[in-house]
Order: sequence, then structure tokens, then C-alpha cells
Amino acid sequence: MASMSLLTTFAPEIYEQRLQRAQEITKADGIDAVVVATGEDFFYLTGSMLSSHERLTALIIPAEGKPQLFAPGTDILDLNLSPVPELNIEVHGWNDGDDVYAQVADVIGRDSAKVAATAALTADHLFQLQNLLSAQWVLANTALAELFSSKDPAEIDELRKAAQAIDRVHEQVPALLQPGRTEKEVADELTDLILQEHVSVDFVIVGSMENGANPHHSFSDRVINAGDPVVVDIGGTLASGYHSDCTRTYVAGGDISQAPEDFLKAYQVLKDAQQASLDFAKPGRTAEEIDASSRTPITQAGYGEYFTHRLGHGIGLSGHEEPFIIAGNDLVIQENMAFSIEPGIYIPGKWGMRIEDIVTTTAEGIESLNQVPRELR
Amino acid sequence: MASMSLLTTFAPEIYEQRLQRAQEITKADGIDAVVVATGEDFFYLTGSMLSSHERLTALIIPAEGKPQLFAPGTDILDLNLSPVPELNIEVHGWNDGDDVYAQVADVIGRDSAKVAATAALTADHLFQLQNLLSAQWVLANTALAELFSSKDPAEIDELRKAAQAIDRVHEQVPALLQPGRTEKEVADELTDLILQEHVSVDFVIVGSMENGANPHHSFSDRVINAGDPVVVDIGGTLASGYHSDCTRTYVAGGDISQAPEDFLKAYQVLKDAQQASLDFAKPGRTAEEIDASSRTPITQAGYGEYFTHRLGHGIGLSGHEEPFIIAGNDLVIQENMAFSIEPGIYIPGKWGMRIEDIVTTTAEGIESLNQVPRELR
Repeated sequence: MASMSLLTTFAPEIYEQRLQRAQEITKADGIDAVVVATGEDFFYLTGSMLSSHERLTALIIPAEGKPQLFAPGTDILDLNLSPVPELNIEVHGWNDGDDVYAQVADVIGRDSAKVAATAALTADHLFQLQNLLSAQWVLANTALAELFSSKDPAEIDELRKAAQAIDRVHEQVPALLQPGRTEKEVADELTDLILQEHVSVDFVIVGSMENGANPHHSFSDRVINAGDPVVVDIGGTLASGYHSDCTRTYVAGGDISQAPEDFLKAYQVLKDAQQASLDFAKPGRTAEEIDASSRTPITQAGYGEYFTHRLGHGIGLSGHEEPFIIAGNDLVIQENMAFSIEPGIYIPGKWGMRIEDIVTTTAEGIESLNQVPRELR
Repeated sequence: MASMSLLTTFAPEIYEQRLQRAQEITKADGIDAVVVATGEDFFYLTGSMLSSHERLTALIIPAEGKPQLFAPGTDILDLNLSPVPELNIEVHGWNDGDDVYAQVADVIGRDSAKVAATAALTADHLFQLQNLLSAQWVLANTALAELFSSKDPAEIDELRKAAQAIDRVHEQVPALLQPGRTEKEVADELTDLILQEHVSVDFVIVGSMENGANPHHSFSDRVINAGDPVVVDIGGTLASGYHSDCTRTYVAGGDISQAPEDFLKAYQVLKDAQQASLDFAKPGRTAEEIDASSRTPITQAGYGEYFTHRLGHGIGLSGHEEPFIIAGNDLVIQENMAFSIEPGIYIPGKWGMRIEDIVTTTAEGIESLNQVPRELR
């Protein structure tokens, strides 16, 4: 969440429903309590952007009873700017010298068998709690994946708005990719265009020719020539905190016939593979099966070693979150999850290509929130 | 580290010395390995500002043998912009699908008895390692406090420069605190002045009258009147990543006799208490004894319940770090540590006051890096 002070929040009822759902899943999973560290997960459940540093701020959701929020006494006034006062949460301000970890351990329950913590909880706080509780500790974002990976209708609306916003930027890319310009010149214009549609820019990748073969490349002073393959991966944050993230691959100048022949051949494989995953992904499939639905055809066409990353990642208040669409993740995809489908092929020293859409799962399949054309242009 | 891309680094020899020292202390403390998460501690040891998100980036310092750095394959090119290639560190790029936690566990040693992790390591990565290693886990920043709390000469030079920079800003505060101006108007000018002396602004507190009684207050539209007590706490970051942090309390308009009588009486207690701590602090004292050296006289004068926070915090690449000068911390202060001494008295609804200096410990005592006058003016 790049610009937390700009974040807008939903109605208190939305957070109340999320807290209730969190508690139901916690209880059903046999977890005694969930420790929610500040950051995106805390904002998702409380609408507060309070942050924790060396002084602990955390929300404790016990399997039974009222959620309890601990924060430094000097910080709790800030909660009045959030929905927290309207929620069924008990707030505890603590001061230097108080043993806040002992208080938190009491709320979790000293005899707890299984406690979950969110990914953002840091070792300084975690070790203190682990020393007080002999429980088994599990990662809340996977143990409670049903909560943290599933999106309610208000969230899907925001992700759809974000996808439409970045689609409008992509529509302008062919006109920007004029031969003779540098990647940086194009990236600077993209930054302005993203800001017209979002409150902040998350990243801008303009990777022409061999630069496109580095999935981590941002942009450089390389001059783009006619016919160069160019990977453009861009994303931003809306005022609600939800992210956009969409990649298309272009041919600079727009005359496809000028692109390298081996690139054009591989692009057809990539596009078919991405479409195969769009067709395959639906509730009931596992994350690793969806990864394989692109990876298998790309490998069969001989490009397997050049598809060097996972197929996708969840997206919401975080740019990257569960479900991670990757070999080894047997998470069963449910309705109302949101994630990217983004296969790529990267030939070092030559060129790269990637096609990325954000999709949400419906009862029967998926909806691709990004609709900008996937054809080379 | 507000603006990581602006950070300058020291010569490679400095990092090599730090790594060697880290390894010596690790071995001497009976710790098998230290896991250094990205952030200030990683930057301190490697000069690299690489960051980790859901994909692990970490430096492993074993008690014996070469330190090992794990980072996503797509990120390791960024290490070439840092001193890492010149250091005695083995770099491992890993890709999606690799079991990086198993690789890290092998480097730590599967049969390790005691492993340390830095404060910034997050639960998503930590739980994975804890599942693979049955070791006792301890917080590196306290277990290796001798490393993480002690500053080498190059660091003390940077902290001294930072203190002198913020002192120059404080020298201009009396002229800014004209009756009739709002806290926000003063804060805006302070922001500009801090930026003239630093690469970024960490915080600006201008708390007049009752606003000064909230140690967390930043600034407001309250109009400052002649004779109002005003707490001004300001800090910024140098290009080296080191922070300034200094508080003085002023009387708006400069005519001390116009300030509330009860305020003037309490200020003498505060100033004497802060001086008592400056005189008391030295190597061999514990953090809690130094806290008491201000707290005891303030309590004896009847203001104990209004001194609601710890006496101080360490400072370096982090704005707040060990040593925390607080009751309950029996850490023995050593030569070459750096921390704040900042007692305060806060009467809710009336006024507040705080005096804060950054000090470093010498062989015999302390040096106060801040030298701007502590008298009311």
C-alpha cells in the first residue's frame, strides 16, 4: 500500500462481516487465535492503516469472544480516524513498561494448542509470543486461505475498476512505442498515464529486445527500434488500496512482420498457453494444476527452460499474495479468488515476452478483469 | 530508510569488518547461524538495499565458513550495484519452484541447536525455517547486541553529521515560532529546512500547549499564542541512511515570563533530570539504570505519572533500534553505542515538554552529538 494516508475505507458492516468470517474459519480450523500484524491484512480486517514498529500493534482474533486490538497508548487516537470504533473490537492502549506480550498471550490463551500469525508479523514480536506460548504456530494466510485469498463483492468491484484503469493505459501504449525513443522516455509517459488513473504507481517495466528477457528489468536508456519486441508490465494503486497489474508484449512501430521470426513463433506458443490457462482455471482446480496448464504446452514446444517463474500470484490490497499459482501449491482454488495468469518466455540476450491478466473465479470458471487485446500490435 | 535508492555506501572493507565481527560474535555466543532479513540490518552488513517480499532474500552468517546470500534469480543482478561482489559472500540465485528454505536450512545446519534471526524477518519465511529446524530461535538484535547496537567510527561520524544538521534546523526555530502562526505553518517551514540538511524528512512534531501533551501529535491548524509552550521534535535521513532526531521545547515569541508558571516549574525538573542522565550514562551502566536516572528525579518531584514513555532508543540506520533505554532492559551499555536521552512531562489538556539528545558512548562517558541549547527560549 504505497500511499496509506490516501486510502478510503468501506462501510463498517463490511469489516464486521470479515471479522465474523475470520472467527468462524478460525474456530472451524481448530485454531485458538489469529495474530494479525499491521499492514494489508490488518487494513482488510479493520480498515485501519495503523502501523507497528518496535512497539507492537496487532489484532488478536480468538476462536471465541471479542477480537482484541493492542496498540501503543500514543497511537490509539489514530484509530478514531478508521472504522474501528464502530466495530465489535476491544481496544487496549499499552505504554512503555507494560508487558504487552503477556497481555496478548493471555488473550490468545496460555494453553493454546494452535495459533496462527499473518505473514507480516516480524521476528521481534513473534519470538516474544513464542516464548510465552508452547502452541504450534501456522501461517494465517495459508491456514485461513479461505479468508485471506477470497474476495467479497466490494473487493472484486475495486479490482475490476483497477483492471479497467490499467487497460486504458495499455490502449495508449502502441502510440507511445515509436522507434527512436528510449525505454525511459516511454516509461516516463506511462508513469503520468498511470497516475491519471490511480493514486500511485506501483511499477513500470518497458523491456525492449534483450532487456525484455530479464523479468526484473524496469527500463533503461536503450533506444527502441522498429520491430523490437517490447514487454510492458505496469500497475498502480487505487484510492481504495486495490492494485492493478497487467502485461502485454508489443512490436515497436506496430509492423509485426519486422519482429524477429523466432520471437513470432514463440509468441504464438505463449498466447495459446495463456489462453489454455484462462480456459482451464476454475474453482476445484489446484494452484499447481493451473500453473501446469501453461507450463506443459510451453515445455512441449521446447521453451520450458525459458519460462523461469511461477504462473501467477494473488492480488488485492497486496500486489502479491495468496493464492500463488506455482508448482507445489496444492491449494484448491475457490470461487471469488483473484490472481494473475502470466506465462512468459525469456531468451537471454535476445528478447522476452509475457502476457498477464488478473482473473477472478466465478462459480463455474473465471472472469478476466483485463480485456485489452492480447494480440501483438 | 525512507529513500533507499539515494543511499550511499562505505568502502567494502567496512562491510568485510562487520561481517567478520558478526561471525566472531555468533561463534562466541554459541549460535550456529544468523539469518539476516532485508532492511537496515542487511544494509549494515552488505551495503545492499535489496528487499524481500514473498520471495525470500536473506543473508545467512554461519558460525564457521563463508556467509551465504540467497535472493531470487531475477533480483541478483541488483547486487552488482552494491559492495556485495567485493565481499567474501557466496551468492545463490533461486527460482520459483526451488525449495529455497531447504537450501537455507542446509546452510544453517539441520542439527543446529541455536539460530538467531534479525527483527525484520517475517512470519511467512520464519515459519518455513522453523518447520525444518528444531533449533532454539533467538532475536539477533539482542543476542548479538554487541554487533547490532555498537557503531564503528564511520557510523559515529555519520550520526554526528546528522546531529549537527538537525541542530542547525533547531537554531532557526525561535525565529519561526511567531505568535499568530499555526503549528502547520511552522511545520511546513521546518520540512523545507530539514530537506536542506538531509535527503529526506523522517517526522516533524510541532505541539503547542495541550497538543504538546500528546507525544504522538504531529502538527495541527492550532494558532500559536505568545507564551505558549511548544514541543518541536524533528528528524531526517542523510544520504548515508543515518538518522537525526532531536527535541527542544520552546516558548512562542521568546518571552519566557509569559509561559504558564506550572510549566516553568516543571521544565526546571525536566532539564535537571535530562542533565542527570547525560552525567550518569556511561559504559557499564544498564539501559534500565539509565532510564531510572531521569525517571527517579521526575517521580520524586511529583511528575512520574506524566512521564509516560521510555527514556530513549538506539539510532543508526534505523530511527529506533537497540539499545532501548527502558525499565526491564538489563543490557549493559558498551562503548560506541548511540541512543537518545529524551525525558518528557505531559499534562493532559495543558502542555507538554521533552528534551532529546542523541549521545554516543565513549570509553569513560558519553558525547552528546546534539549541542543546540537546552534552555527555554
